[in-house]
Amino acid sequence: MTLSDLETPAALVDVERMEGNLRRAAEYCRAHGLDWRPHAKTHKTPELAAEQVRLGAVGVTVATPREAEVMATAVDDILLAYPPFGASKLERLMRLPPHVRLTVGLDSAEALDALAEAARRAGRTAGVLVELDAGMGRVGLGSPEHAVELARRASETPGVEYRGIMFYPGHIRGPVAEQDDTLAALDARLAERIAALADAGLRPRVVSGGSTPTFWRSHEVAGITELRPGTNIFNDRTTAEIGACAWDECAYSVLATVVSTAVAGQAVVDAGSKALAKEELRATGGGYGALLEHPEVVVKSVSEEHGLLDLGATDWRPRVGDRVRIVPNHVCVSVNLQERLWGVRGELVEAEWEIVGRGRAPWVARAQAAAAG
Amino acid sequence: MTLSDLETPAALVDVERMEGNLRRAAEYCRAHGLDWRPHAKTHKTPELAAEQVRLGAVGVTVATPREAEVMATAVDDILLAYPPFGASKLERLMRLPPHVRLTVGLDSAEALDALAEAARRAGRTAGVLVELDAGMGRVGLGSPEHAVELARRASETPGVEYRGIMFYPGHIRGPVAEQDDTLAALDARLAERIAALADAGLRPRVVSGGSTPTFWRSHEVAGITELRPGTNIFNDRTTAEIGACAWDECAYSVLATVVSTAVAGQAVVDAGSKALAKEELRATGGGYGALLEHPEVVVKSVSEEHGLLDLGATDWRPRVGDRVRIVPNHVCVSVNLQERLWGVRGELVEAEWEIVGRGRAPWVARAQAAAAG
Repeated sequence: MTLSDLETPAALVDVERMEGNLRRAAEYCRAHGLDWRPHAKTHKTPELAAEQVRLGAVGVTVATPREAEVMATAVDDILLAYPPFGASKLERLMRLPPHVRLTVGLDSAEALDALAEAARRAGRTAGVLVELDAGMGRVGLGSPEHAVELARRASETPGVEYRGIMFYPGHIRGPVAEQDDTLAALDARLAERIAALADAGLRPRVVSGGSTPTFWRSHEVAGITELRPGTNIFNDRTTAEIGACAWDECAYSVLATVVSTAVAGQAVVDAGSKALAKEELRATGGGYGALLEHPEVVVKSVSEEHGLLDLGATDWRPRVGDRVRIVPNHVCVSVNLQERLWGVRGELVEAEWEIVGRGRAPWVARAQAAAAG
Repeated sequence: MTLSDLETPAALVDVERMEGNLRRAAEYCRAHGLDWRPHAKTHKTPELAAEQVRLGAVGVTVATPREAEVMATAVDDILLAYPPFGASKLERLMRLPPHVRLTVGLDSAEALDALAEAARRAGRTAGVLVELDAGMGRVGLGSPEHAVELARRASETPGVEYRGIMFYPGHIRGPVAEQDDTLAALDARLAERIAALADAGLRPRVVSGGSTPTFWRSHEVAGITELRPGTNIFNDRTTAEIGACAWDECAYSVLATVVSTAVAGQAVVDAGSKALAKEELRATGGGYGALLEHPEVVVKSVSEEHGLLDLGATDWRPRVGDRVRIVPNHVCVSVNLQERLWGVRGELVEAEWEIVGRGRAPWVARAQAAAAG
């Protein structure tokens, strides 16, 4: 099968580029003695999680019970970096295969106690990472005192095992070359909290952090033991824009067809917000994506099934029926809009991966239902 | 089953409000002698399309072959308001059940000729609406001359039947009370094109237009014969903001759980951009959604699985584990992120609808595969 056999829009993964991205990430972690625990939310695909583990990942990170269920078919060490609330979610977690080593990140006594109770009832032990706010102001405990308090509770509560701390430096999203001050502040903030925990006899064995924007500078933050980048398996327009990857390290694109050139100065493709998502570019450039082969051609606006290519900065003039490949601003949300990923090498389609980690419904039940016909 | 049995995030449809919305839309169309052809892209659910037809819709509008396949199980008159390019999409359309009356909207000779050839090969006739640009500048022919040219080609090409024209007034999105000038301009523009077509002996029997923002003022545009609103089956924060519905006519919400209150002044819920989408509000207010029961509480930011509720304008203080219902800015893209819709009446869950029109893969093939086990 070749690219021309695919209906558009279709999500393509350049297998060679993806392998390069994964090898570079693994090598960086090895060089700096860091555990690599990529976030599976980006690909939601067990075959790709297995490939990450093959190349050196210690396990994966997930955000939902569905992702945990799916990844448990390929990986035996899973961090759920999200507090599970409600009996149903806790039961799903406890039904993961017994060999899966499960750790959960959380920031409240309520989440901790509910997890511990579910684990005791299931006769399991769940690891716990206490989530700290690294400066983003989204979730996580702010003060060293609160961190010590929750870590102590975790260490004293049967059913759970205190394993350390986690944070997400989501406030550091600017150009890699301009992260000096924010990384230094993070380093100081983290050191203070690790010291407070150590003073209380709760030194964290795991200090889990990292993101794609800060990935290559993670070693500048003392104390980190593991990294959870999601995006950098594929990269995207934002990652390239901030200098965390080169344009030719973008492994994911959406294949689209030009469907109208009726309005002058633009071409309309069949990939809109239901294929690319409609997230603004944080950095310069605007629009919702750019052409892989003509990065100066920007998707200037999207509606649900239409993407408008701005032809103002190019001599390239497509015709209706022509095909293009678009790199979206944010790959994670674009992947989440697809049913499958097509692994391609040049024009050849060599793999088809169903994105089975999408959605919310229990995966085991669905697989069983399919087997039962 | 009640709301408390649902895992969050979950997409809820208030059945009573939905019925009210549909009845009002049907009544408006009846009162003004307009055909009602709601766009199924909003719900992507055949049970809801069937309900629209039961209440008076002449058929539905769709945007993709998948939506056409799914809706053909419930509706026998389908307008594909999108040009189908590529052999695969054309073949899928021609495999729709023979009793389905199919019409396609398009704006190029290339799309017309390919459709006609596929129809001839399949021994079918496809209706054609020539798409005009009503001022949005997205797709559609701009000049009366180009409209006449393509209409003539449609009327003379075997395999297709020229049925009229269509347009989408997507440039009119502001407050309903402030649409006077844009509607007058649209009225004049349309009159000129209808006259040019009539002069050429190509008077359009169908003049298909309408949208949710302009819905209640459609009768002010002379010549329109049918309306294609999508959103107003459910409504959303944008529709309410521009005055095209009341807040208590919002029938769709995302049920979410508060998962963190660690950072002061906000509460974090488990519905982020992968449940609400991340589309800016066009009108005032900002953010990505608002609470159904506390509309002053806005989702001030979202990441993939986190929504941050701004508590600055309310005395309401949620605790972790509490549940809320969020009305998103744009309902169509939020529905597209769900697997199913839960029909609710008060606290009671009385229906479960799988959103089978999502995605791109052929529906028939999938249904057959499931049947084969």
